[in-house]
Amino acid sequence: MATPVSVPRQSDDYTREAAEARRDFLKEQAGASLEHVGSYSFDPAALPGNIEHFTGVAQVPLGVAGPLLVNGEHAEGEFYVPMATAEGTLVASYNRGMKLLHAAGGVTTTIVGDRMQRAPAFLFESARGARDFGRWLDEHFDEVKAVAESTTTAGRLQDIEQYSASRILYTRFNYTTGDAAGQNLTGKATQAACHWILEQYDGIDRFFLEGNFATDKKSSQINMLRTRGKRVVAEAVIPDRLFREIMNSSSELMYRARQVSNLGGFMSGVNNNGAHSANGITAMFIATGQDVANVAESSAAFTYAELRENDDYYYSVTIPSLIVGTYGGGTGLATQRECLELLGCYGKDRVRKFTEIVAATVLCGELSLGSAIVAEEWVEAHDLHGRNRP
Amino acid sequence: MATPVSVPRQSDDYTREAAEARRDFLKEQAGASLEHVGSYSFDPAALPGNIEHFTGVAQVPLGVAGPLLVNGEHAEGEFYVPMATAEGTLVASYNRGMKLLHAAGGVTTTIVGDRMQRAPAFLFESARGARDFGRWLDEHFDEVKAVAESTTTAGRLQDIEQYSASRILYTRFNYTTGDAAGQNLTGKATQAACHWILEQYDGIDRFFLEGNFATDKKSSQINMLRTRGKRVVAEAVIPDRLFREIMNSSSELMYRARQVSNLGGFMSGVNNNGAHSANGITAMFIATGQDVANVAESSAAFTYAELRENDDYYYSVTIPSLIVGTYGGGTGLATQRECLELLGCYGKDRVRKFTEIVAATVLCGELSLGSAIVAEEWVEAHDLHGRNRP
Amino acid sequence: MATPVSVPRQSDDYTREAAEARRDFLKEQAGASLEHVGSYSFDPAALPGNIEHFTGVAQVPLGVAGPLLVNGEHAEGEFYVPMATAEGTLVASYNRGMKLLHAAGGVTTTIVGDRMQRAPAFLFESARGARDFGRWLDEHFDEVKAVAESTTTAGRLQDIEQYSASRILYTRFNYTTGDAAGQNLTGKATQAACHWILEQYDGIDRFFLEGNFATDKKSSQINMLRTRGKRVVAEAVIPDRLFREIMNSSSELMYRARQVSNLGGFMSGVNNNGAHSANGITAMFIATGQDVANVAESSAAFTYAELRENDDYYYSVTIPSLIVGTYGGGTGLATQRECLELLGCYGKDRVRKFTEIVAATVLCGELSLGSAIVAEEWVEAHDLHGRNRP
Amino acid sequence: MATPVSVPRQSDDYTREAAEARRDFLKEQAGASLEHVGSYSFDPAALPGNIEHFTGVAQVPLGVAGPLLVNGEHAEGEFYVPMATAEGTLVASYNRGMKLLHAAGGVTTTIVGDRMQRAPAFLFESARGARDFGRWLDEHFDEVKAVAESTTTAGRLQDIEQYSASRILYTRFNYTTGDAAGQNLTGKATQAACHWILEQYDGIDRFFLEGNFATDKKSSQINMLRTRGKRVVAEAVIPDRLFREIMNSSSELMYRARQVSNLGGFMSGVNNNGAHSANGITAMFIATGQDVANVAESSAAFTYAELRENDDYYYSVTIPSLIVGTYGGGTGLATQRECLELLGCYGKDRVRKFTEIVAATVLCGELSLGSAIVAEEWVEAHDLHGRNRP
Repeated sequence: MATPVSVPRQSDDYTREAAEARRDFLKEQAGASLEHVGSYSFDPAALPGNIEHFTGVAQVPLGVAGPLLVNGEHAEGEFYVPMATAEGTLVASYNRGMKLLHAAGGVTTTIVGDRMQRAPAFLFESARGARDFGRWLDEHFDEVKAVAESTTTAGRLQDIEQYSASRILYTRFNYTTGDAAGQNLTGKATQAACHWILEQYDGIDRFFLEGNFATDKKSSQINMLRTRGKRVVAEAVIPDRLFREIMNSSSELMYRARQVSNLGGFMSGVNNNGAHSANGITAMFIATGQDVANVAESSAAFTYAELRENDDYYYSVTIPSLIVGTYGGGTGLATQRECLELLGCYGKDRVRKFTEIVAATVLCGELSLGSAIVAEEWVEAHDLHGRNRP
Repeated sequence: MATPVSVPRQSDDYTREAAEARRDFLKEQAGASLEHVGSYSFDPAALPGNIEHFTGVAQVPLGVAGPLLVNGEHAEGEFYVPMATAEGTLVASYNRGMKLLHAAGGVTTTIVGDRMQRAPAFLFESARGARDFGRWLDEHFDEVKAVAESTTTAGRLQDIEQYSASRILYTRFNYTTGDAAGQNLTGKATQAACHWILEQYDGIDRFFLEGNFATDKKSSQINMLRTRGKRVVAEAVIPDRLFREIMNSSSELMYRARQVSNLGGFMSGVNNNGAHSANGITAMFIATGQDVANVAESSAAFTYAELRENDDYYYSVTIPSLIVGTYGGGTGLATQRECLELLGCYGKDRVRKFTEIVAATVLCGELSLGSAIVAEEWVEAHDLHGRNRP
Repeated sequence: MATPVSVPRQSDDYTREAAEARRDFLKEQAGASLEHVGSYSFDPAALPGNIEHFTGVAQVPLGVAGPLLVNGEHAEGEFYVPMATAEGTLVASYNRGMKLLHAAGGVTTTIVGDRMQRAPAFLFESARGARDFGRWLDEHFDEVKAVAESTTTAGRLQDIEQYSASRILYTRFNYTTGDAAGQNLTGKATQAACHWILEQYDGIDRFFLEGNFATDKKSSQINMLRTRGKRVVAEAVIPDRLFREIMNSSSELMYRARQVSNLGGFMSGVNNNGAHSANGITAMFIATGQDVANVAESSAAFTYAELRENDDYYYSVTIPSLIVGTYGGGTGLATQRECLELLGCYGKDRVRKFTEIVAATVLCGELSLGSAIVAEEWVEAHDLHGRNRP
Repeated sequence: MATPVSVPRQSDDYTREAAEARRDFLKEQAGASLEHVGSYSFDPAALPGNIEHFTGVAQVPLGVAGPLLVNGEHAEGEFYVPMATAEGTLVASYNRGMKLLHAAGGVTTTIVGDRMQRAPAFLFESARGARDFGRWLDEHFDEVKAVAESTTTAGRLQDIEQYSASRILYTRFNYTTGDAAGQNLTGKATQAACHWILEQYDGIDRFFLEGNFATDKKSSQINMLRTRGKRVVAEAVIPDRLFREIMNSSSELMYRARQVSNLGGFMSGVNNNGAHSANGITAMFIATGQDVANVAESSAAFTYAELRENDDYYYSVTIPSLIVGTYGGGTGLATQRECLELLGCYGKDRVRKFTEIVAATVLCGELSLGSAIVAEEWVEAHDLHGRNRP
């Protein structure tokens, strides 16, 4: 095999010229034109910290669903929700659900948890070493907290969970992180804390900054139980009449289907007994500059429904590990910032508002797809709108 | 609450004018400019079937990592991999892993399973009804298959799995789907099959097209066990010397960290005992027009490693539910098609090639992040490249 | 440390004298009297194959609950169910549930699956080797089956499931096993089959008879999905009136509690969303000579309930991995055989009858404890009957 | 259906006569003799609180394995371990493992966690109600603790965990429980606490004492993560030489098999990546009067092994939810007490010693079966000892 030819870089690599040089290189190497990729409307100088080897953009179609009516503690009123997707019916389906929930008086949203973590693992000669260290860590929490927080303005260490197995102590350093999603600040803070710990405490055989207990970009029972990012509930009470008028369905039929899905999901070992929260979350994440790979854990959800005596349908979705930010990451990029601004969610002190809007959107999509399934119109809906698909 | 004001639509809704009208409407409603969102390089006439309420685009920064050396059965040789992301260090990290694996002779890839499903649930008066129906279904498989396949040119019904609980029979109709990801064609085919079944078989109390046994856009044990989309293995043997030269690490250190992560992941109930496959998958999915919400299930993975006697490191990733297509969905959109063409993966008879490239890319990213963690340089790497992040 | 003093054995080790010698030895070594342990009513000559170092017996108190009314396909009519336990309230609670279900017309039971397995894992140089072997295995099923079945009169190899990861092929050799639980016969048959396979097929790098895919004496999602031992459903429809008269409860209250337990169980990652099937199963297993360690997997269950329009309560329990036998193992021991005979379940062609009785018993216990919890009388019930407990 | 004939009871129901009357009744009803069941050596007057409808006993064969060498913090020295089972090879297999570990210097045991819980669920009108109650509960912990502890001498409320979903707050009231397993005392204490809470706090819509978050007698991820009963680690370092001399195996072969089992277990969704801890636990539970149904959760385990540079094998088992007591329940019964006394574990201040002996026993069994599997002698071992089995 010949020496590999690296992707070309330049001393000032975040320019239109550098990007064009890469597109030319790729054309030469692979014979592929990247004309549309090279069509973008912003200055690449803004991109350091967001990408390397910048070559252009993916243009992802963006639609808007709404108005979504939210009765939150941070988001109140109507919102038009930007969704970037190439999946036919997605925007239409969420839009339909928003119509239903608007007629029902809106979606109530509540943030019930907030913690981002880094999860170092410490190894000792034996289990006793791990246990004794755990006690020491409890006793020195204030000092550890001070060291960790010295590295960040936004992060606050809330507590350190301990999970013991063999000669290993797995920990979770839980932080609040302001308006940032916070994976990076918690990484820095925890590393600083761990370096301090390693200096202070004798007998640590080995240390790893991660040991699969924060499960960044993966779905896990621990994050479903103990929260990662925001834990948020969206709920509503919908009269049976509205299901019949708007959704070609009924609350009783919805409820029966829910019971079958609950059992199915329990048996299949799914991380979400609901319908398809990932659809709405992904489309909003792409539109607003979230770290889209966090769909892996953000797609977990708990659905809980009740058929009330008057045939009202109580419906709720709990998202236990929703990773969002309104500051940092991709939120400041050109189209992404515009989309956050459309929601009034760009910048500081907005992340809780944004969280509630995402959760409310998810609820609308759940009821819409759920209705479609029970009405056996699911396939037909796709036929109508999704005609590009084989 | 006043009557909600719907997002405006026009009779010919897939035009630049219709999109502009929506942007104007949003500016009026929410005071937000969508100037960059309105900057796109293709004709909206191509969009029906991909989006509703088309308003513009999300411009997602795109970088290229490579060359990736693949020793596949369908992908062979070097590839430059397009990745759309706003996460600093991501492209650099995958690029570094590709360098390592190139030096090691490339990534071997093998598709070991291929099945897309729809999972209807059938209810009966009692468990006996469910069991008896299951037998009937086995006996009439050929007829069911004929009906299902009458609705599709690409789809082939392979088998129908049965999972019994209470008075319900959950089924999985498993198909191969050609070059399409296939969620829609399996939906149509299965619905047709179910309608035929409902006509033929007495005693079905109720029927739902989905009951949380296909778990589309959700992660589940059943899909990790029984495959959804492609089941693909990427593997390589890397000399210890390369870890030391390129990664500031060693095979022995990598292996010890892996053991801790294996136990941590088993205890935490994670769907992926590896590092961060979602990062590479998501970036490639956005770039190439995949259904990005499928990151939910595509992010599941099994990592298995061995430290060989000569200190070589055998490393493998198995992705049990990778949902990809090279035809239909968003694959034909402007930038998305260009990115597929960059890989030589646009259109018919390319999906297996694309599958292998994705898997090989994932392996490179696993070794790169894994090395960074063991070298304790993880945080520093983010500091350097990710400076936009709080 | 001095040389360890082994437990004494004799040439004819299954005699009262040999047992007494061991009790004497233990008295000398540990100063403990084993007078009651030495009180048993059978001839130790019957024990080879059941225990080594026979020293005496554990005398476990045995009560009887009933009559249990079963409307099964193999068990029909009334049964008095022997339960060996030291847990106060257990027998009373099951007895109360049996009264309820008797009044409701009995428990309907259905065996919906039957497969016992051994799960060898095969390693190859790479994933391709594993995949190719998988195809060969499919093609040679008939030969493998013949070899496997040559070792057993009762066992029949039904199919071989394949689960692929990395360079490993995990398999499940699924058998029916007559009236034996069958772990041993499947072990022998599978080992014979594997030896034949190893002779026939080149390229198997390594082979292990178990790789955590049959999960004997452990609970697993795979066995909950794919059955281990018997998969059996018990179901009943109970009028609301009976809950009020007999259980100090109501169907509506039961149902609401069920919903909360379903969500709780989904979130907590439990292997049984019901109440306490392990109680009844364990007590019956001890009484009837089952392998009690199989409570680990036999305790998994799926509960599914419906509140009908007339306030009837449909309630069902599905036990997906119930390991039982009426022949071999401990079933022929003195008290154990008597208890099986009490149920008309000793010996050949009785295992399905016994399966149904166990399942019906479980259902009664679920409704009884469930009622107690909703009536908030749970603790009081324990106070009354369980006064030996601190 | 004729009126069901209840099992006869007498005013003084715990006498030999009452038991005999029931045996006579059963003979009449079912034609079954219960002669051996009627053979027991203790006075039934001791049984209230342990069983209802006492009819006799199950005589379970009991063998003894040992000496087991334990280097614990509470158990130190050699023990002969009583095991009640009808499974051939079980005692022999544990005995062989004890020989190996004795030669290796014994088993080191460490209790790393101790908490028994009751898990009430509280419902509110909406998620906000649940969240606000959670805060109140935190603020009033001291009062709740005082009320709870007023009902018990042994129980101490350590903390109350909260898990939020929908309009429900699931809690775990975690206690230490002295020498009792503690399910009953935590039940009583928690119910008292809840009654106090219900009086103090307005707005609780509904309350259930259990909602599948303590998962008594069921296996769950939450208990594997957060401990139920004792969390205990057993570990040892075994020279390769001993595997070769005693086990017909080698540390390297053991380790390779472990890797395959780790991956298999992760993929199959098992609650125990080890071999068969349930076997030893069950046999000891029956012998010593534990609540055997707790095998359901006590059988969960985490195995972690390392092949050291000198070919020593570090091996550990972590049991995260071992439910044991040395006081109350069945521990005071005739044979059960004798078996506890054999271990020096009857009565007060012995539960931690007993915990360590159980864990050490489990480790021996894991290495013994593990060796048998890798030596492919597993089936032969059963053939030799288990000849009663079909």
